[in-house]
Amino acid sequence: MQTERRSLLKKLAASFLGVIGFGLATKANTNSKEDKQVFNVVSDQDVPLFSGSTKYNGLVFIAGKGAHVEPFEIKAHTEIVLKELEKELIKAGSSMEKVLKVTVYLNDINDYQGMNEVYKGRFGKKPPVRSTIAVAKGGVPGDSLVEMDCIAMAIS
Amino acid sequence: MQTERRSLLKKLAASFLGVIGFGLATKANTNSKEDKQVFNVVSDQDVPLFSGSTKYNGLVFIAGKGAHVEPFEIKAHTEIVLKELEKELIKAGSSMEKVLKVTVYLNDINDYQGMNEVYKGRFGKKPPVRSTIAVAKGGVPGDSLVEMDCIAMAIS
Amino acid sequence: MQTERRSLLKKLAASFLGVIGFGLATKANTNSKEDKQVFNVVSDQDVPLFSGSTKYNGLVFIAGKGAHVEPFEIKAHTEIVLKELEKELIKAGSSMEKVLKVTVYLNDINDYQGMNEVYKGRFGKKPPVRSTIAVAKGGVPGDSLVEMDCIAMAIS
Repeated sequence: MQTERRSLLKKLAASFLGVIGFGLATKANTNSKEDKQVFNVVSDQDVPLFSGSTKYNGLVFIAGKGAHVEPFEIKAHTEIVLKELEKELIKAGSSMEKVLKVTVYLNDINDYQGMNEVYKGRFGKKPPVRSTIAVAKGGVPGDSLVEMDCIAMAIS
Repeated sequence: MQTERRSLLKKLAASFLGVIGFGLATKANTNSKEDKQVFNVVSDQDVPLFSGSTKYNGLVFIAGKGAHVEPFEIKAHTEIVLKELEKELIKAGSSMEKVLKVTVYLNDINDYQGMNEVYKGRFGKKPPVRSTIAVAKGGVPGDSLVEMDCIAMAIS
Repeated sequence: MQTERRSLLKKLAASFLGVIGFGLATKANTNSKEDKQVFNVVSDQDVPLFSGSTKYNGLVFIAGKGAHVEPFEIKAHTEIVLKELEKELIKAGSSMEKVLKVTVYLNDINDYQGMNEVYKGRFGKKPPVRSTIAVAKGGVPGDSLVEMDCIAMAIS
């Protein structure tokens, strides 16, 4: 089951549809209420499952990011997850400094300090709010030790 | 205890106060920053507990939705939860296609794929971002196998 | 470990940097898209870790709040957490009545009703939406029995 799930995640990772939602890009108005933009749509058997980010009305929403590779160690996984968040933020026209709210889901509350050591300072001098909780053991998909999502400002 | 909780949920479900917050409806401006609108307020002994949805500044927030009936099986519960989300979205003037962000709380990480099979394609071609985690066993109120909430665009 | 974590939390609590982000305060425009404001930045060894609240585009985001003192009892902890939320909301220019969305993370699903008894009525007649789940036992940092975060309207 674990294997199946990780294999699904790999399949998902391999099936990026690329960027969708640039239809309004020529309007160049991040505050437009007319439509949402989505980036990095992940599909499962050609059916859209979720987006890597969505953008609307000056806000950017980033999907929960996990780490699914060795080493299964909290600092390494935190580093991967922060990098993934940053990649999505930049793709959506935002940045780490523009993040308003982060949610951190840990696999184990004992990883709290290790996560913090890698996390601190990564969002600039005006960091986002944060909520951190430990979920069920193994409760982050794909055996990741940590999952994070965020809401950010669209650069205007 | 489980029974008490489920009985409370039923009582809550039975005590919908109906729609509140239409005071500004005549202004017909979903982008108004002047006040929030709320829909389907749930009360506990006549004291307001939470709303089914809130709406402000172009955004709609939907309360966490669970499934509290037989069969206690992930695909059936996912179907119920998605329908409940859709009902609230429509009542608040939004839709599945307008959803920006979804959080999925599973009772058991082994239900990840079953949930996905029902979930995929339900939010259109530009799906919302998603964060999925498994909480404590029995950690979704009312014995639901899955709970979902979302943030959506108000239709403007 | 638990002790270390709580001691970190105390250290964090003691290292409030105070308010940052008032640079734009003279503009007195909560809907400004120009920059975010942050309040009560918490640092770890002089490195910014997270903010107590962030504010942007008419919205206020409040950090997850826990209770880290005796008695370790759900009603007492819920009371503390709600008071902490309220303090942050007011500092950011919002209020309990302006809250749009709350997430409640319980240490134990059996505390659901106890939490509810203290929670109900605290956000006025048009309460926010809410998602409640129980995380891993001990999964709320600092041994809190409950953690809550929220998204609110900035008073305009």
